[in-house]
Amino acid sequence: MNSTPATPVPPSNGDEAASGPAAPRHLVSIDDVSLGEMHALFEHADKFAADPKGFADSCPGFISASLFYEPSTRTRLSFESAMLRLGGGVLTAAEMTSSSVVKGESLADTIRVVGGGYADVVVLRHPSEGAARLAAQFSPVPVINAGDGSHEHPTQTLCDLYNLHVERGRIEGLDVVLAGDLRYSRTVHSFAYALARFGANIVCVPQPGFELPEYVVQRLYDEFGVNPVRADARGLGKLAANSDAVYLTPQKPHQLSLFTDARGWEVEHVDAVYMTRPQTERHSGKELSETTYLRLEKRAMAAESLRDAVVMHPLPRRDEISDEVDSDPRSIYFKQAARGVPIRMAILAWLLGRLELGADMSDAPNIGYPVPAGTNPCPNPSCISRTERRHVIPRTKVLARDPLKAACGYCTRDLAFEYVGCSSSGMYHAPGAKAVKQIHGNHLVFLESAVAAAESGFRPAGSAT
Amino acid sequence: MNSTPATPVPPSNGDEAASGPAAPRHLVSIDDVSLGEMHALFEHADKFAADPKGFADSCPGFISASLFYEPSTRTRLSFESAMLRLGGGVLTAAEMTSSSVVKGESLADTIRVVGGGYADVVVLRHPSEGAARLAAQFSPVPVINAGDGSHEHPTQTLCDLYNLHVERGRIEGLDVVLAGDLRYSRTVHSFAYALARFGANIVCVPQPGFELPEYVVQRLYDEFGVNPVRADARGLGKLAANSDAVYLTPQKPHQLSLFTDARGWEVEHVDAVYMTRPQTERHSGKELSETTYLRLEKRAMAAESLRDAVVMHPLPRRDEISDEVDSDPRSIYFKQAARGVPIRMAILAWLLGRLELGADMSDAPNIGYPVPAGTNPCPNPSCISRTERRHVIPRTKVLARDPLKAACGYCTRDLAFEYVGCSSSGMYHAPGAKAVKQIHGNHLVFLESAVAAAESGFRPAGSAT
Amino acid sequence: MNSTPATPVPPSNGDEAASGPAAPRHLVSIDDVSLGEMHALFEHADKFAADPKGFADSCPGFISASLFYEPSTRTRLSFESAMLRLGGGVLTAAEMTSSSVVKGESLADTIRVVGGGYADVVVLRHPSEGAARLAAQFSPVPVINAGDGSHEHPTQTLCDLYNLHVERGRIEGLDVVLAGDLRYSRTVHSFAYALARFGANIVCVPQPGFELPEYVVQRLYDEFGVNPVRADARGLGKLAANSDAVYLTPQKPHQLSLFTDARGWEVEHVDAVYMTRPQTERHSGKELSETTYLRLEKRAMAAESLRDAVVMHPLPRRDEISDEVDSDPRSIYFKQAARGVPIRMAILAWLLGRLELGADMSDAPNIGYPVPAGTNPCPNPSCISRTERRHVIPRTKVLARDPLKAACGYCTRDLAFEYVGCSSSGMYHAPGAKAVKQIHGNHLVFLESAVAAAESGFRPAGSAT
Repeated sequence: MNSTPATPVPPSNGDEAASGPAAPRHLVSIDDVSLGEMHALFEHADKFAADPKGFADSCPGFISASLFYEPSTRTRLSFESAMLRLGGGVLTAAEMTSSSVVKGESLADTIRVVGGGYADVVVLRHPSEGAARLAAQFSPVPVINAGDGSHEHPTQTLCDLYNLHVERGRIEGLDVVLAGDLRYSRTVHSFAYALARFGANIVCVPQPGFELPEYVVQRLYDEFGVNPVRADARGLGKLAANSDAVYLTPQKPHQLSLFTDARGWEVEHVDAVYMTRPQTERHSGKELSETTYLRLEKRAMAAESLRDAVVMHPLPRRDEISDEVDSDPRSIYFKQAARGVPIRMAILAWLLGRLELGADMSDAPNIGYPVPAGTNPCPNPSCISRTERRHVIPRTKVLARDPLKAACGYCTRDLAFEYVGCSSSGMYHAPGAKAVKQIHGNHLVFLESAVAAAESGFRPAGSAT
Repeated sequence: MNSTPATPVPPSNGDEAASGPAAPRHLVSIDDVSLGEMHALFEHADKFAADPKGFADSCPGFISASLFYEPSTRTRLSFESAMLRLGGGVLTAAEMTSSSVVKGESLADTIRVVGGGYADVVVLRHPSEGAARLAAQFSPVPVINAGDGSHEHPTQTLCDLYNLHVERGRIEGLDVVLAGDLRYSRTVHSFAYALARFGANIVCVPQPGFELPEYVVQRLYDEFGVNPVRADARGLGKLAANSDAVYLTPQKPHQLSLFTDARGWEVEHVDAVYMTRPQTERHSGKELSETTYLRLEKRAMAAESLRDAVVMHPLPRRDEISDEVDSDPRSIYFKQAARGVPIRMAILAWLLGRLELGADMSDAPNIGYPVPAGTNPCPNPSCISRTERRHVIPRTKVLARDPLKAACGYCTRDLAFEYVGCSSSGMYHAPGAKAVKQIHGNHLVFLESAVAAAESGFRPAGSAT
Repeated sequence: MNSTPATPVPPSNGDEAASGPAAPRHLVSIDDVSLGEMHALFEHADKFAADPKGFADSCPGFISASLFYEPSTRTRLSFESAMLRLGGGVLTAAEMTSSSVVKGESLADTIRVVGGGYADVVVLRHPSEGAARLAAQFSPVPVINAGDGSHEHPTQTLCDLYNLHVERGRIEGLDVVLAGDLRYSRTVHSFAYALARFGANIVCVPQPGFELPEYVVQRLYDEFGVNPVRADARGLGKLAANSDAVYLTPQKPHQLSLFTDARGWEVEHVDAVYMTRPQTERHSGKELSETTYLRLEKRAMAAESLRDAVVMHPLPRRDEISDEVDSDPRSIYFKQAARGVPIRMAILAWLLGRLELGADMSDAPNIGYPVPAGTNPCPNPSCISRTERRHVIPRTKVLARDPLKAACGYCTRDLAFEYVGCSSSGMYHAPGAKAVKQIHGNHLVFLESAVAAAESGFRPAGSAT
């Protein structure tokens, strides 16, 4: 077997390995954090929000580095504001693409240098999906994912959840409307997963043609037992007039059947409306005309079901929320953005070891990720495992055992493989073979084809040694 | 009347309204500051200049944000140096145009986010005239105008005045030469108004064809009673050899008549020469050949009238001051730039509430600006009221009552209107009509045409209700 | 003689003159620092490295400015991290080329403004050779050269030397291999000179066709008495297989004769291998195919001679070090980069006057540089003395007296001159003339031609007054 990882990684329980003695904690995915940890972060954020200038001696001598491989001024300033409020220093590389990258440096090398002595925490924005996961594998200091392509943006999700915590006092059991482009919005997908984990109900009011993708609905069902029913949109008024609303409710797992419940469910009371802009930069321009995009107007806000609803938006907005709505006391989108600072203060202070959360992390979905040897047959062309092959340490997540199904440990898309090898026995099998169920997670090797299996030194199951 | 502002703004006395309880003080125009406040700022700047590193604990936990929609490294670094010297933190967005703006965010939204929680003061540079005024209307924290197109740059003006204060001990009664491109230099116009307010005399030595524009001369006369006479340039030597010098002297208001005083005025003693570069980026290249541009040389400095004159320049300079002049002790342009830091320290500390000026602000020209409802018929295509129509809250300044004349509250250019409405009576009138004089300032609505009047729901004067 | 410098400079002993009372110390070249000072810097760096967050109160209220006329994120972040660790503030101008420079400002003017009040130390990166030297002549505060074209990058060299100090405890007498593109790498040239000054031995293992340039070998011989012999590369294994290794050993000066010692020298023990990438941005692409470039692989590291060798690389690397080597404990290149922070902390604290080195500086090669009047006939088209003629104060270094030979005081290339003038007598001579040896260093004027001599007001030697 000649495919060894670039750097030895202990067959750990999924935490990233660093060259130093104790591996640091990272925030690459919202799945890296447990519910208890999130609650603890919210409580610390409350304290920071109450006295933003009162914690300027929390992180003396500490430094964060913003490494942005694509521009995102709002996200960058929010993190940098949080670090400055904590009394730390900030290194800014807002345009990484115009610098060392030109000289051909890999992300893994850059992160080892910046994390090796320049900064105590790295805030990374990168166009490749899974980039922050790769960076975390090589970084001696915590890595925070500030957006990796259309994949994840966990601090945005934590900020959104924190706003529900502040406005409603809880997240469990809330009825939250997700409206607009639900197909391409990274923010909406992450928010939906997190709402499901917390046990909130989700009402989808998509722009027609821009519904929540099948793989998101599937994961909501598989991991969180969420069950979608067709919603009776009457209660939402104009907002849902030309849209098929779907009600997603967790904690009642039964067979997945989109829209089979013909009776529907009447949306009587909404706690929050989360409006999103058309993600025009992520789809070819002509798919969606802005003139017909859903628009939240003053009249819609008069609906009885929205009486107590707060209006949220990850910003920037264009025309999907009318300016008239700005002065409505239920509009909290500017406050929502401002609260990005205290929640990021909590995240930074926590990862820098200046804050003890004292919370159990056992329910974080990413606990127990296997890190097998072998290749990482990810079919996603935007995945860092393909754009920066050189340093990729295979990393996967087993989703099912019969037949074996697995996701890429970087971009979380389903892996494309024909055979499964066992690094212990040296044999390979079909994914549905009985023997596969016996292979220990750390010994699983995903193989694109019989040729790839042979090249990696595996023998077909049952053949002689 | 269906034209309501985007956000309710109290019919205040002209201070910008924010969503929070107490509206912050802004520095959008030099006209926002009273003479007493300027004197107080100069005295605080003296203290900062005497011990630049001694105030590093003045603003702990405070943050300024540099939002630059066009590059200006010198101005940005000057502000950021001042904030760091005060012990505050700095957020930098040096290239706003390459970021969220691409995603279509309005200035009003950006300022509500950045000012809503990221920073305690916003330093704004923007290519649209009046942009800082619009930003101030929406910002919960102080906005400092660091240049809005060719309109204003008040901290540059305060820096220039502060230099006269340091070098001469006073500004009142000084004789100041303004030389070079007096037509396109924003810096020169603001400086001229401020000199007139302080009661200094101005000698204009323009590059031929680049004289002070008529509207500047008019405002100097209208607001400050400045009277121009043709100056006898003999005393200025070579500097004015091929230029028509004009002497502007305040505090003696009489009829405006450029150059009617044939006797002229002999310039015997100059306190300061303020040299400016050709503003080639603001006019089509070929209007002015650099080879024939005015040039301050060693020989000119030998003139008797310049014996005690300090030489100032807002920098960057090209060839309009010979390098030989650099070593002349009267050349203070590098010191002038350096003094931008202590004066900006005073401005920041003041707006952040860390410094009490204890000065009367009643003589600030912008006190009492009406904020009417209705449209804002500004004819200036570079005005923010036209480039960002969406969020514009009409804002005007009444310049005369008979006939009614008003300036745009953003870019300060004269408004173009045919009729005047009264938001109380619902009637509209010709600007010279008797009834117009009775309309309360807060009820004035400027109407481009009878059609616009009708569209806004106004009836012609005298018609039935 | 009509060629006077732009600003009067005292005929000093070579220290840059500032407008203020006491000229600050700069770090433009590694030759500005004595061996004793370097040792003292290493010892201070050891303290900073041992407790990186423990010195956050060392430079309260102090500010560094990064002025980068070409991008170099790694170098910039390293300096800024060092300044933040010391508790100072940082001003960043990462893209100077897009700002004031567009308005036509000279480097001399920019540095007088930024150094005049914005910052307490300036870190300068510039594409013109000698730019930092020019900046230092005009700056009231210390200037640190962070790279001037393909000329010098002294803090990189100090970082490399510091790594030898940490890893080996000494530099004197070490055997250091320089491998790869030795022709175009600025880093390698500076490192070679410094190793020679410290009395280390150098083994050159160049990429064929990319040998150390003749002028570097010549200077190693002329200034440091270094003698090259052909090395027997057997001991280096695969690394040197297709390359002509050269062994350079100082302290035994004899006649320069490349490769005349046919016996060669067997490399038995190497202390450090310094690998460099192909400097593709400095030579026309097709000169070197990356596929055939030297590559340090796991197998080469098994060589007996490399048993104790540390592997260094200035980074970024491409493929010249195999990823497998990363996990070898002898690979220190990521640590090497990280140690750039403590050594730069020592340099900044020293130049800011917060650290006393207490070392003799008499052996710094740049002590005693003459600063003559006259022209500076430098033939290098990338030299700042040609790209920014306006502010150039002639500055040369006499290399030999018979015949007179001199180097440009900016880019250190040999000056091209036909005659030598004496500013005291007003006469000019051939470089080999007897009278030349009598001219005092401060009176030497280098003249391109008889015409230039006449234009500068010199008379031929022996002619009547």
